[in-house]
Amino acid sequence: MTQGFSFEVLHRDGEARVGRITTPRGEVPTPAFMPVGTRASVKALHPDEVRDSGASILLGNTYHLMLRPGEEVVRRAGGLARFMAWQGPTLTDSGGFQVFSLGALRKLSDEGVLFASHVDGKRELLTPERAVAIQAALGSDIAMILDVCPPGDADREAVLAAMERTSLWARIQTGCSRALGQAQFGIVQGGIHEDLRLAHLEEIASLGFDGIALGGLSVGEPMEDMYRILAAIGPKMPQNKPRYVMGIGTPLDLLEAIEHGIDMFDCVMPTRNARNGQAFVRGGKLNIKQAKYAEDPRPLDPTCDCPCCRRFERRYLRHLFNVGEMLVLRLLTVHNLHHYGELTRMARQAIIQGTFGQLKEKWALPVEDV
Amino acid sequence: MTQGFSFEVLHRDGEARVGRITTPRGEVPTPAFMPVGTRASVKALHPDEVRDSGASILLGNTYHLMLRPGEEVVRRAGGLARFMAWQGPTLTDSGGFQVFSLGALRKLSDEGVLFASHVDGKRELLTPERAVAIQAALGSDIAMILDVCPPGDADREAVLAAMERTSLWARIQTGCSRALGQAQFGIVQGGIHEDLRLAHLEEIASLGFDGIALGGLSVGEPMEDMYRILAAIGPKMPQNKPRYVMGIGTPLDLLEAIEHGIDMFDCVMPTRNARNGQAFVRGGKLNIKQAKYAEDPRPLDPTCDCPCCRRFERRYLRHLFNVGEMLVLRLLTVHNLHHYGELTRMARQAIIQGTFGQLKEKWALPVEDV
Repeated sequence: MTQGFSFEVLHRDGEARVGRITTPRGEVPTPAFMPVGTRASVKALHPDEVRDSGASILLGNTYHLMLRPGEEVVRRAGGLARFMAWQGPTLTDSGGFQVFSLGALRKLSDEGVLFASHVDGKRELLTPERAVAIQAALGSDIAMILDVCPPGDADREAVLAAMERTSLWARIQTGCSRALGQAQFGIVQGGIHEDLRLAHLEEIASLGFDGIALGGLSVGEPMEDMYRILAAIGPKMPQNKPRYVMGIGTPLDLLEAIEHGIDMFDCVMPTRNARNGQAFVRGGKLNIKQAKYAEDPRPLDPTCDCPCCRRFERRYLRHLFNVGEMLVLRLLTVHNLHHYGELTRMARQAIIQGTFGQLKEKWALPVEDV
Repeated sequence: MTQGFSFEVLHRDGEARVGRITTPRGEVPTPAFMPVGTRASVKALHPDEVRDSGASILLGNTYHLMLRPGEEVVRRAGGLARFMAWQGPTLTDSGGFQVFSLGALRKLSDEGVLFASHVDGKRELLTPERAVAIQAALGSDIAMILDVCPPGDADREAVLAAMERTSLWARIQTGCSRALGQAQFGIVQGGIHEDLRLAHLEEIASLGFDGIALGGLSVGEPMEDMYRILAAIGPKMPQNKPRYVMGIGTPLDLLEAIEHGIDMFDCVMPTRNARNGQAFVRGGKLNIKQAKYAEDPRPLDPTCDCPCCRRFERRYLRHLFNVGEMLVLRLLTVHNLHHYGELTRMARQAIIQGTFGQLKEKWALPVEDV
């Protein structure tokens, strides 16, 4: 374990767990949802609003930060958290996922991945060594290894090749020096194949990482396959380390994963959907653009006590969206992150009380007349 | 005077005054700057951020609100302040200024002004009667009369014609029924001609309005002409009523006007300039987009204690602007409104202490090394 970083499981309810991650910059109660602060900002929000939503750790995207403002600017500013005035822990991804999303613009080899910056077209080579070095400069509390993430429709051979290269790179990266107190998480690939996932889990788990993530989920595969993999793999991940599923998901995805022993999540869904007018409410979603809300005096979610729902009416939010006032993007984002914050808070409470199963059933119930 | 509305001059320093406007929704210490909440939102800000900047009254634009969401939607929501969750007084303009800005799209007669909506092209007739009725529906605490505002380069004949039509409409509007407790301010035209301004002031002041505004300033005329008119007309406006100069201005414009006895201001400058990256700082301005701020650890204005300057560094703000993160628009707007809030607070204090002249001189001093 990295000095200054630790994890403890405090309660269990079936496979579901309540735990506590300790980092040099603060504690993270788990299960935890990490809002995405792509370019050193959770879009539309002040860091205090993020904190007040119930989030205790943020995710930053290495790909975006290495291009702008550049990792050395962040290092000289005291690291990512200090740069963005966030008073708490951060996790950075490796940059690989964004690079792979560029598709035709990149070229993969054992050495690393060559890509062209989306900002100015400049060619960049992201190697395992560089992924660690950039994150060391960013100074996040948790760094992710550079892995190879095949698309959801990749065939078994392609998945196997991605696994093997991920293992090769994982071994290299355990030997690279990181920032003081910076934990390093390994990533398990294997697509929707249980045997591959188990084999890769065993390999990655043997390398002594501070935590283990499942990558390559929610990348286009059917939901049933993702849920099957979560059920088969989650409980077999190391008990004494944080377990993180990258890039998921809906509130129901989170509950499904928590049931199978997952501790950490990140996803752009609550923030991105907010900017499209979509609010998560108990039992479903609503889109504030709809004309039926033009004179609706109710808050977004009458059961919610977030700063948006305590103060603003649907008719006002709908007006703001309709005329393009940016305040509404903030208010919907606050609400959605609060919804996720509440979900994880209630999950932790239910696990402590041994009632997680009921919470999961209750959350899925549709509510009429949204 | 309208029931529930009153004004008191509390202190004087030369022609400069400190006063208090009382409205049904709260008090306004004067001199007061009114942030512009065009479409029922001060762009980028939460109403609490507006309040915390030192603003006690907001301006809403009748033209925009009558088109979207429509004044009846606002009426049914409990009026403008309640609709936008602003806990304080509001002032609405008449809609005339925006309509005249449409230029070729409008047609003016004694009856009113015919225009095409910028939203859907629909033809609308804004009459003096309708301007009062719409503002009654909006339920602002202070309603402005519909006037005719000629451009800054209009000749004397055109200015005279605008004055005469404004007087005709003013008389009509004093007879139209307003919302309960809603004050009505008259508007003085006359361009940059002192004799016309004085004649029109006399006429408008005779109609018993709750307050008097100078319109048709900062519409393209030279600054010297505006300052000359402020010096000549300000002190001759009724002593016992609020005096409002519409649509100005820079911090130095405000100080100039306050010196000549003006009590109220509104302007998009602090909010609009913020969205272009420009921050008002003591002794000047800075544009956060500039590369020289890329690694500058100072706050926008080291002498400022606004929520932006207390927490965020120039290098972070510059990064946010550079990558297009909307948080920076909010933070710069907060800072700029705070700058205006501080300016009026310090003006009130200086007038009470009899040191307004020194404040005005000091504020204009350039500060090195912004």
